Amino acid sequence: MKFLSDNAARVHPRVWDAMKAADEPDSPYDGDGLSKALDARFSALFGRDCAALWVATGTAANCLALSAMVEPHGAVICHREAHIEMDEGGAPGFYLHGAKLLLADGESAKITPEAIARVIDPIRDGVHQVHPHAVSITQASEYGCVYRPEELAALSAFVKGKGLGLHMDGARFGNAVAFLGGSAADAALGVDALSFGMVKNGAMSAEAIVFFDPAMADKVRFRRKRAGHLQSKGRYLAAQILAMLEQDLWLDNARAANAAASEIAAAARSRLLHPVEANEIFLASTAAERAALRTQGFEFYDWGDDAARLVTAWDAREEHVAALARAIAGL
Amino acid sequence: MKFLSDNAARVHPRVWDAMKAADEPDSPYDGDGLSKALDARFSALFGRDCAALWVATGTAANCLALSAMVEPHGAVICHREAHIEMDEGGAPGFYLHGAKLLLADGESAKITPEAIARVIDPIRDGVHQVHPHAVSITQASEYGCVYRPEELAALSAFVKGKGLGLHMDGARFGNAVAFLGGSAADAALGVDALSFGMVKNGAMSAEAIVFFDPAMADKVRFRRKRAGHLQSKGRYLAAQILAMLEQDLWLDNARAANAAASEIAAAARSRLLHPVEANEIFLASTAAERAALRTQGFEFYDWGDDAARLVTAWDAREEHVAALARAIAGL
Amino acid sequence: MKFLSDNAARVHPRVWDAMKAADEPDSPYDGDGLSKALDARFSALFGRDCAALWVATGTAANCLALSAMVEPHGAVICHREAHIEMDEGGAPGFYLHGAKLLLADGESAKITPEAIARVIDPIRDGVHQVHPHAVSITQASEYGCVYRPEELAALSAFVKGKGLGLHMDGARFGNAVAFLGGSAADAALGVDALSFGMVKNGAMSAEAIVFFDPAMADKVRFRRKRAGHLQSKGRYLAAQILAMLEQDLWLDNARAANAAASEIAAAARSRLLHPVEANEIFLASTAAERAALRTQGFEFYDWGDDAARLVTAWDAREEHVAALARAIAGL
Amino acid sequence: MKFLSDNAARVHPRVWDAMKAADEPDSPYDGDGLSKALDARFSALFGRDCAALWVATGTAANCLALSAMVEPHGAVICHREAHIEMDEGGAPGFYLHGAKLLLADGESAKITPEAIARVIDPIRDGVHQVHPHAVSITQASEYGCVYRPEELAALSAFVKGKGLGLHMDGARFGNAVAFLGGSAADAALGVDALSFGMVKNGAMSAEAIVFFDPAMADKVRFRRKRAGHLQSKGRYLAAQILAMLEQDLWLDNARAANAAASEIAAAARSRLLHPVEANEIFLASTAAERAALRTQGFEFYDWGDDAARLVTAWDAREEHVAALARAIAGL
Repeated sequence: MKFLSDNAARVHPRVWDAMKAADEPDSPYDGDGLSKALDARFSALFGRDCAALWVATGTAANCLALSAMVEPHGAVICHREAHIEMDEGGAPGFYLHGAKLLLADGESAKITPEAIARVIDPIRDGVHQVHPHAVSITQASEYGCVYRPEELAALSAFVKGKGLGLHMDGARFGNAVAFLGGSAADAALGVDALSFGMVKNGAMSAEAIVFFDPAMADKVRFRRKRAGHLQSKGRYLAAQILAMLEQDLWLDNARAANAAASEIAAAARSRLLHPVEANEIFLASTAAERAALRTQGFEFYDWGDDAARLVTAWDAREEHVAALARAIAGL
Repeated sequence: MKFLSDNAARVHPRVWDAMKAADEPDSPYDGDGLSKALDARFSALFGRDCAALWVATGTAANCLALSAMVEPHGAVICHREAHIEMDEGGAPGFYLHGAKLLLADGESAKITPEAIARVIDPIRDGVHQVHPHAVSITQASEYGCVYRPEELAALSAFVKGKGLGLHMDGARFGNAVAFLGGSAADAALGVDALSFGMVKNGAMSAEAIVFFDPAMADKVRFRRKRAGHLQSKGRYLAAQILAMLEQDLWLDNARAANAAASEIAAAARSRLLHPVEANEIFLASTAAERAALRTQGFEFYDWGDDAARLVTAWDAREEHVAALARAIAGL
Repeated sequence: MKFLSDNAARVHPRVWDAMKAADEPDSPYDGDGLSKALDARFSALFGRDCAALWVATGTAANCLALSAMVEPHGAVICHREAHIEMDEGGAPGFYLHGAKLLLADGESAKITPEAIARVIDPIRDGVHQVHPHAVSITQASEYGCVYRPEELAALSAFVKGKGLGLHMDGARFGNAVAFLGGSAADAALGVDALSFGMVKNGAMSAEAIVFFDPAMADKVRFRRKRAGHLQSKGRYLAAQILAMLEQDLWLDNARAANAAASEIAAAARSRLLHPVEANEIFLASTAAERAALRTQGFEFYDWGDDAARLVTAWDAREEHVAALARAIAGL
Repeated sequence: MKFLSDNAARVHPRVWDAMKAADEPDSPYDGDGLSKALDARFSALFGRDCAALWVATGTAANCLALSAMVEPHGAVICHREAHIEMDEGGAPGFYLHGAKLLLADGESAKITPEAIARVIDPIRDGVHQVHPHAVSITQASEYGCVYRPEELAALSAFVKGKGLGLHMDGARFGNAVAFLGGSAADAALGVDALSFGMVKNGAMSAEAIVFFDPAMADKVRFRRKRAGHLQSKGRYLAAQILAMLEQDLWLDNARAANAAASEIAAAARSRLLHPVEANEIFLASTAAERAALRTQGFEFYDWGDDAARLVTAWDAREEHVAALARAIAGL
């Protein structure tokens, strides 16, 4: 019973169907009809003009989005535990040509205007220190916590006031939207570019970069090709994304994953290290307790010495979820 | 009737089947069983120890392979019309951190030891000019022509004698092997790293980088992640590659494409600008002749003012091929 | 008797004096009074607002200037024999983060709008090929030839019309101005940034980058520091530049070098491969003739098999120049 | 009375003399006799084979040295307050093509094997996190503290055991050697490459990169040119370095600066935030106290709200030093 990650879950049947339906040859790269439909589809979802590009991975999505905002001599402010800092193999350094990541602190891997100010304020004027060009936040955060619209409004106002760009890593954006009640626009309020995650949520190999400033997309089109991320059979990626958006499959899948996490969290109330708002549970536990869970057939990652990380995916099986909830309650 | 390119062709049914069969969750990234099977599978094919990595595009394959051989202050020698120079949006400059491409000439986009020498010899000793670290050749070439094993032996000996690495862009490697009679090892003789193309030949989104020096693969694993090319559901890419290798599907597909090209070429003998050895036909033709072909429903690219480029794919329909042959004969 | 290059000539006594006069400690980096005086001094010289930065080398000057105009996914158009292409050890690839150089042809290493068009026109729309962001020209050219103001006006209009930046490598800018009659503004007409060479013309280790668009300078200040080119005792570099500008020392020195070249050229009329407009002479000559000159004590470089390159510096000694002229006449 | 920094001090008269003596033209770049003499001169000083390159700045020295040890996908471990992290405008990101700096803690800006282990140990195996390729330490440290030979031996053994390179930023290497008693070899024990600072210690614009592994120097020669740091009149830089080494001028100058700092420190015993081992004094002080010192004519930097940083240079005037000591004692 796998609670290791949502990043290796199955591909949703409707995504399979959409890929198959795209098999008929069309123009290569992003010249096909499906790829061309993305802008309008995301514009409808967000209620404003968007330009959207597909790429194969969240790392590429994050770094390409940031490359539209950050010059090589600049920096990105992000949380100390952000994926771009901790888990992307130095990709920001590559895509941003040596720009730095400046690390902010914050509860549950969320950052606030105050946390950003604590990074910016000590930077001396002039050229001896690197200055930020953008801020990157993660929705939901590395600890599965969700920025509320009013938090985003305050963050965005602060970030714009400093003349910086604002990027959102939405590897689990669907889970955040599901938690907030369903408005994609609210969950990305004030953001310039969003990495809209699909792979953890039912797709196979397609993420969307959504730009709310079309000029950024025009630059990133060149950067995507230059990074070897412009696939020639791009229609299969576009098909995945469109299938995810069709009839809110992305939202249904995210709700299913969130519900599974909630069920587990309800059984683990006193052990939760972070509020369970999306599909991740950080569970205070001894090594012996974790061994006991594993003996019962549950797979998950240790999180340091005193905790476990459990992730539910869109395809979590109800009997596995219930079994895990019981097992945790019985510890 | 599309003869535009092989890069947007269908996905082969056996590749679809293999992807579906991979749907059950396994370890993410390249920790799954399918990804782990690649080294042995390619080692068997080439009759020597190989390490193989999947990536989504030929551009990524080429540039990552070269990144194992070329330092940022170095250069790659390639043909003036090589894909890495002409069609990859500057990706080599990105992946090689500013290393240069030094351009060689040669018939039908093939290069020889003499052509390489004409690039190297004028380079002055010392640090004022950039020195090559590797040579990249394309099999089959940009004009669909194939390096014979003895040509590769001579090239490789020359390149090694200069202390350089040797990379092969095999976007149409299958077509070259099919032409040569079926030995993958012969078609990649003396090469350090091969971009083994699958997408043009029946796969959806998976190319293989095959390293004949495992130390190169160890470095490129880091570079692949850093470039955002390590997909979390890597098992679907590995599945495509394994399906292509299973029972020589790659070779059958390439033979089908080559046969279609040969049939067309036979009808166009006096108009061929290059020998038709793989699946591309460069057809001397006037604008009026090309318009006539298009009127009959054939799609293809102009190649300058006086020629057309026609490409056959693995799924070329016999009646389309025959019709095109007739139409060309009738010009 | 050295006619190898002007790049190792003596430091002019007035430059020495200025450096000594700067010995009293002042603010480090470019916070000292001398560094701060550069903008006004160059603005006066060019008759318009300029921002000027010192750096130690022409390579740094060229590449930093270009870094204000060219994004990593772009390119620079320059002459096939430009210093940035042939002699800077790949520095443009480093400073521009992998951007390409696109090579134009032209008589005497000068380029024209037509030559630029021949580079641009075949570039396909879209992201598969690299597009230029700037043009770089050399004044005086690699063959010692000078762009006339009307040529610059035409070039600049064309380049601006394409939306590109225009950079001038002025390693021998003084020699060009001297040839044209003394107006710095005329010799840099229509240019966005100028590498104003001082080292070949009497300074020790200071070149100026002159920006006619101050926003470019603001960005390059960061890039200069990031490249390790912001010296802490910057006052000694500023002192050199100010001394060169004082009472037109730069122009007097350039005139002296040009006059020496003219005297030699007059003796070599029938052998000149390029017009002698600055301080370089390209002399058609056999190996035996060059050996004869060397036997008489003259040092210079071969230029291929059939020519010699002779360069005169600001401190060329009259008796050496006269002797060389006689020797050439006597061949 | 300036105690702001040693980085804007005068040029020593013997350095001036050496530069003047180098005025006669010689081969350009580093082909002159003086530049060629550096290897032997440093080999004699360190009692082992060295290869030494001049550059104009400490930032270039540090980053070029590191570029011989660190690949773009790697990282450098350094102290959280190291100059390369805090004061070089992102130059490591540029020179190392996006490699990261990983920050270690430690008293007085020195690091220990344990501190390095605390950085390395949490890094997960595999490609998702960046792995270090080198460690950089600063001698004397940012707080003017000196690594003892036995500390260096332990550090070096640890670093080598991890398969990493070891770089020493010796911007104030002379001050460290002076403190330790005069052996350059002891002060750089176990190091692969040393940035040997000259500019803060009496030179104008020349630092030395000393490689104890000649293969590193061979690579860095290309990188230096590529970074625009190969000056054409290199003989003036070599002359500065040779003058500094002649009759141990570097050591005498460092001793003078250290003695001045010691005199001040003796008057400030109870206020010292760090041991005064080189030429920097970090003085606990209130804003009012600092204002009082400034009223008396002393110039220096605040160090946060509760301290001052005072730096003595080789040319500190005895009466100024004595006056400062008295003033501090009288606070």
